[in-house]
Amino acid sequence: MKPARIKWGMLGGGPGSLIGSVHRIAAAMGEDYRLVGGVFSSDAAKNVEFARDLELDTRRAYSSVDTLIAGESALPRDERMRLVTVATPNYLHHEAAAKLVDAGFHVFCEKPVTITAAEAIELERLAQSRRVIFAVAHTYTGYPMVRQLRAMVGAGMIGPVQKVHAQYYQGWINPLLRDPGKRGNVWRLDPARSGASSCIGDIGVHCFNLIEYTTGLRVERLLADTDTGSPDNPLDVDGGVLLRLSGNVPGVLCASQIATAEENNLQLAVYGRTGALKWAQEIPQRLEFLQEGRAASLLTAGHPFNAPQARAASKLPPGHPEGFSDAMGNLYRGVARAINGEPFDSGDFPGIEAGVRGMRFIEAVLQSASAGSQWRSL
Amino acid sequence: MKPARIKWGMLGGGPGSLIGSVHRIAAAMGEDYRLVGGVFSSDAAKNVEFARDLELDTRRAYSSVDTLIAGESALPRDERMRLVTVATPNYLHHEAAAKLVDAGFHVFCEKPVTITAAEAIELERLAQSRRVIFAVAHTYTGYPMVRQLRAMVGAGMIGPVQKVHAQYYQGWINPLLRDPGKRGNVWRLDPARSGASSCIGDIGVHCFNLIEYTTGLRVERLLADTDTGSPDNPLDVDGGVLLRLSGNVPGVLCASQIATAEENNLQLAVYGRTGALKWAQEIPQRLEFLQEGRAASLLTAGHPFNAPQARAASKLPPGHPEGFSDAMGNLYRGVARAINGEPFDSGDFPGIEAGVRGMRFIEAVLQSASAGSQWRSL
Amino acid sequence: MKPARIKWGMLGGGPGSLIGSVHRIAAAMGEDYRLVGGVFSSDAAKNVEFARDLELDTRRAYSSVDTLIAGESALPRDERMRLVTVATPNYLHHEAAAKLVDAGFHVFCEKPVTITAAEAIELERLAQSRRVIFAVAHTYTGYPMVRQLRAMVGAGMIGPVQKVHAQYYQGWINPLLRDPGKRGNVWRLDPARSGASSCIGDIGVHCFNLIEYTTGLRVERLLADTDTGSPDNPLDVDGGVLLRLSGNVPGVLCASQIATAEENNLQLAVYGRTGALKWAQEIPQRLEFLQEGRAASLLTAGHPFNAPQARAASKLPPGHPEGFSDAMGNLYRGVARAINGEPFDSGDFPGIEAGVRGMRFIEAVLQSASAGSQWRSL
Amino acid sequence: MKPARIKWGMLGGGPGSLIGSVHRIAAAMGEDYRLVGGVFSSDAAKNVEFARDLELDTRRAYSSVDTLIAGESALPRDERMRLVTVATPNYLHHEAAAKLVDAGFHVFCEKPVTITAAEAIELERLAQSRRVIFAVAHTYTGYPMVRQLRAMVGAGMIGPVQKVHAQYYQGWINPLLRDPGKRGNVWRLDPARSGASSCIGDIGVHCFNLIEYTTGLRVERLLADTDTGSPDNPLDVDGGVLLRLSGNVPGVLCASQIATAEENNLQLAVYGRTGALKWAQEIPQRLEFLQEGRAASLLTAGHPFNAPQARAASKLPPGHPEGFSDAMGNLYRGVARAINGEPFDSGDFPGIEAGVRGMRFIEAVLQSASAGSQWRSL
Repeated sequence: MKPARIKWGMLGGGPGSLIGSVHRIAAAMGEDYRLVGGVFSSDAAKNVEFARDLELDTRRAYSSVDTLIAGESALPRDERMRLVTVATPNYLHHEAAAKLVDAGFHVFCEKPVTITAAEAIELERLAQSRRVIFAVAHTYTGYPMVRQLRAMVGAGMIGPVQKVHAQYYQGWINPLLRDPGKRGNVWRLDPARSGASSCIGDIGVHCFNLIEYTTGLRVERLLADTDTGSPDNPLDVDGGVLLRLSGNVPGVLCASQIATAEENNLQLAVYGRTGALKWAQEIPQRLEFLQEGRAASLLTAGHPFNAPQARAASKLPPGHPEGFSDAMGNLYRGVARAINGEPFDSGDFPGIEAGVRGMRFIEAVLQSASAGSQWRSL
Repeated sequence: MKPARIKWGMLGGGPGSLIGSVHRIAAAMGEDYRLVGGVFSSDAAKNVEFARDLELDTRRAYSSVDTLIAGESALPRDERMRLVTVATPNYLHHEAAAKLVDAGFHVFCEKPVTITAAEAIELERLAQSRRVIFAVAHTYTGYPMVRQLRAMVGAGMIGPVQKVHAQYYQGWINPLLRDPGKRGNVWRLDPARSGASSCIGDIGVHCFNLIEYTTGLRVERLLADTDTGSPDNPLDVDGGVLLRLSGNVPGVLCASQIATAEENNLQLAVYGRTGALKWAQEIPQRLEFLQEGRAASLLTAGHPFNAPQARAASKLPPGHPEGFSDAMGNLYRGVARAINGEPFDSGDFPGIEAGVRGMRFIEAVLQSASAGSQWRSL
Repeated sequence: MKPARIKWGMLGGGPGSLIGSVHRIAAAMGEDYRLVGGVFSSDAAKNVEFARDLELDTRRAYSSVDTLIAGESALPRDERMRLVTVATPNYLHHEAAAKLVDAGFHVFCEKPVTITAAEAIELERLAQSRRVIFAVAHTYTGYPMVRQLRAMVGAGMIGPVQKVHAQYYQGWINPLLRDPGKRGNVWRLDPARSGASSCIGDIGVHCFNLIEYTTGLRVERLLADTDTGSPDNPLDVDGGVLLRLSGNVPGVLCASQIATAEENNLQLAVYGRTGALKWAQEIPQRLEFLQEGRAASLLTAGHPFNAPQARAASKLPPGHPEGFSDAMGNLYRGVARAINGEPFDSGDFPGIEAGVRGMRFIEAVLQSASAGSQWRSL
Repeated sequence: MKPARIKWGMLGGGPGSLIGSVHRIAAAMGEDYRLVGGVFSSDAAKNVEFARDLELDTRRAYSSVDTLIAGESALPRDERMRLVTVATPNYLHHEAAAKLVDAGFHVFCEKPVTITAAEAIELERLAQSRRVIFAVAHTYTGYPMVRQLRAMVGAGMIGPVQKVHAQYYQGWINPLLRDPGKRGNVWRLDPARSGASSCIGDIGVHCFNLIEYTTGLRVERLLADTDTGSPDNPLDVDGGVLLRLSGNVPGVLCASQIATAEENNLQLAVYGRTGALKWAQEIPQRLEFLQEGRAASLLTAGHPFNAPQARAASKLPPGHPEGFSDAMGNLYRGVARAINGEPFDSGDFPGIEAGVRGMRFIEAVLQSASAGSQWRSL
């Protein structure tokens, strides 16, 4: 028999929120969760109306994280919310997450998990001490072929890693950049709400996460050159980063939000002693496997020949595309397994330790760039 | 305010059913439905356990379509199931669908909708007389760029259509074909359960549907050559079909289930007087737009420059892949609009008339093939 | 030591001729030939001027095939032209080729080799009796990965062939079709110069040739539906052909010259019992190798792991594209080996027997189409 | 009337030389040159045999550049060699080229043009003072769509450039790197013959050249991190370079020869204020044109809608691939126009000034890397 559905709540992600909708779709995919309440909007009326639209008990449309904690904690254990997704603007993540963790709730937090590395470290300690699950929405790790890539590197199928290349090129900031009016409406470009970085904090960090997630190596040193695109824009919208990983393995990490008209061009290439693996987010079901002296292979999702971690992340037969929501769904599946005490793999969802590493990366890049591209450790 | 969720039930799609899971994920995507019951399995114990796993009221885990109709009809109108998805093996579709329609339920039926064209026509008449919505799961019409293709042909952007090409190549039957033991376990290859055709009825009909859906033309005549792959296999697993559409426009339709190791290689190309549109299911977010004397364009999903029908079918920004479940989700969104009396487009979901056309196509192909590839009208 | 260069001449291919230039570039690639003369133009002044531009002895700029034969035959054996390329309009091929063969010259003839199958058969007999090399410019067989495909099928790497698919879609006739003024200037659409077929004779035949070349099977029966695109156009510009090969293997062959804005979209897929091979002319250095139950492979030209026939057809390391002229160059290389008495493979260049098969194919298609798409043997 | 063929000679490129063969094929393509002699090999017997194989006058198979200059200068002006291609190992380029230029010969030199920037500058001055043509084999600039890219940037079609990305990933050094025996046979990894750099000097410099060639901007500053892959290998085989171009435009340049099993993965992306252009060498006939707020375009070679510089670089209709030799052929075409006094475009072939820039780039990268990745101007 399947375990009872996990009662689940949300902070943010309410009316008009794209990412909120993605989280609900993703959580529905495995039939593991039942949404029971949350703080969907800071506007009280909208909050309640949204709960009503979702046909929830409106008493569980709370006005704040504090009332949510109080209200849920007063319920019988088996009715109580167990997992809370934090999908508010970045600057609100830390305080809310800390309170939830402290009160014993499991947390699924959007990234970047905090504004500073210090805050992330604090959350990590707190989650450990409260023994709660703390997942971070590095959604791309949910794609089957990213998991396949990780499994193949881990199984030694390309030999020791000797070079990595990651790039994330987007163009969406480009039309907003030079118009302060438009720019002001983009919270990503407002340091007060988004933190000290735009490009590196929003997308560069995904490259970083994928490198560490798939290779099992750590980025030990880096140097960076970033650009704000326009003199009156305070945040980076473009950056080039040179890396050295464990064992002095070289790497390049490229990110831009002004790569005009690019959509979501995230690519990863990992080169080992005997082969290479290449993945591109825009056609996520494919993984190129190059091998010294042999023809290249093109692995696709859904096949029995894939690694168990990749197979578990496909719901459909080969040739039936699964997308971004499905990837997020795989993270929710992993979190459910963890909450239900079922066996799970460390790659099933990124935890708070990945959030900490991400924040360290962002800070190191910003420090390197402001010091004229000097090497920084992390 | 959003309309109340539509109470929804399923016939089939229970324990271990892949397509059942896709339907539930798809129905969840728009937050329009609430699953309340069904006949999930012909095994009574499994049926109830499945409902319990889904945390449904097990009294609504019915033992048959008849008890479902009786039980639901006895409920107050606003609690009653309004839409029922039929996801049983093909040979059971017709009887169940007919009873549901007759009792006033809206129906979302897997394809092929029936075993014979005559049965489909009967359902069409019944749905018209009972004024119920009857949707058919031609899922590929739910992809944004299939809708974009349709809208662009409709808007004259390639001029009058002068040639069509559709192909659907799969290989999954290949390893089963010559082993009667394995083959016996595949209901698709059992005429009693699947009907008179395998390849044409299962996948050829999708090519046919996409041609008529996107061009607005009718296939008027066809001739076919089919093959069973193995002397002791009674059903077609491969077929080539030559078409003539309205206005004598030529077309080619190719389908195979023994195109060894192909996954789900469904492609459509529509050539007009001034341009062409090409779509391939395995990278569904892309649409090639060729134009006489100009550079080709590559349209992608999620852009404001797409047609309203395509825009409405994307939930995510450009570059974030959406897949097969998302396509099915768009059909459920359309059915919800129709049930809720909201405005909808004839392309929002394929109706029973598309099911009838599909059955006529299948019968014409089989008749042509058995007559030595003579032309047949439909 | 390398053999002395083969003295070489051309019929046609003179001023402004694209294909003439391709032949000269191709013949230069292997450093096997020396162009010494020809009949480059039917205009005497242009003929001589062209020879002068090529810095040839203008005495070898002959006014006709007869004077060429007479002039060359009068020269000492080691100065005499040995190979003559026939690149005139189609309707002139047969007479010229027959005279050349009869006089003992080796011939490299553009395709279609003749206007009728009977003429091709006559050339075949003549070439056999005169023991000359007679090559036909089925240029696509010169691509390394077409040869690789052939070698892999031949080595049983996909098991017995069970299905073939070939398509050749072009759009160049489209803008000319409905304007009789423009159309009149296109010799391809003039039955007097091009023969009884346009689409099938010009491009459909390449599909046919590739199928027989790569599979080693024969097309035994076919049926066809062709279209002229416009009521006042006498020749086919579009056709769909259903095939049955040796052993009753089914196939589909699709060709069109009104596939609007397509460039040179020639594709071949061969499906066997255990795998499949797919090739597309527009990216000719790649060959997809699908295998039952395994990841797909992507073979590329220039690798030591390719078959000897493919390796011999690449001049550059992997990743350095070679194109259409290089493919033609490989045919010339093969002809040189044959003329020089070096070992060569039957796949090194298509001979007159391929020309005969091609003409039989064209005639069978036209007969089938005019008989309402009845099956025809060939 | 076409001008008389330019008498042409080669240094190096003799028996077994791949690049020598490419030069001869390329020079043949435009029917502008006649090979008359050279120093094909440092082995006297091989030198003469090679000339005999090419059916040249063996008196023009010279033993050294000095005897070539003396011998040719003694000939009547209209028989004399006018262009000499230098295709010897790198370390011999400078002395030979300087002598040839000084004696008034036009030169087509393989790259890197010299071992140091100072030598290149000297050649530049010499070529200017002797008024000879000095072309450098940056072959990739000969691809039609690289020229199209340059023309479109120049015409403002993507607005002011705001970001560039270039990468060149190869894997061929990988299997040789850790085996000193094998490595010793690779002149590219021998500093005495190849100069101070392997990866940057051989392939990184192509990225650099393409950036400056296509954007018209100059790389003003750079910093680099390079790697030798193995402790006992003295030369770089991998490098990441951050760039700042004119106007402080940021750029990333990535190169590796240990990107295992990559073939010739050279890519360029140029992002402007309103659009972007992307090109990849392995499918050179395509150019992606992204535009803000519009569908992407896919331009292909051979179309009338391309810029004149691109059109002039295609010999075949769209859809007929042209490759690496064809690109080199376009450089030779441009050099012929320059020698013949015909109008030519500055993009028709890279001159010695591009060679100088390349050498400055290589030196700046090596200096930056050895200084711990500090910024260097060039």
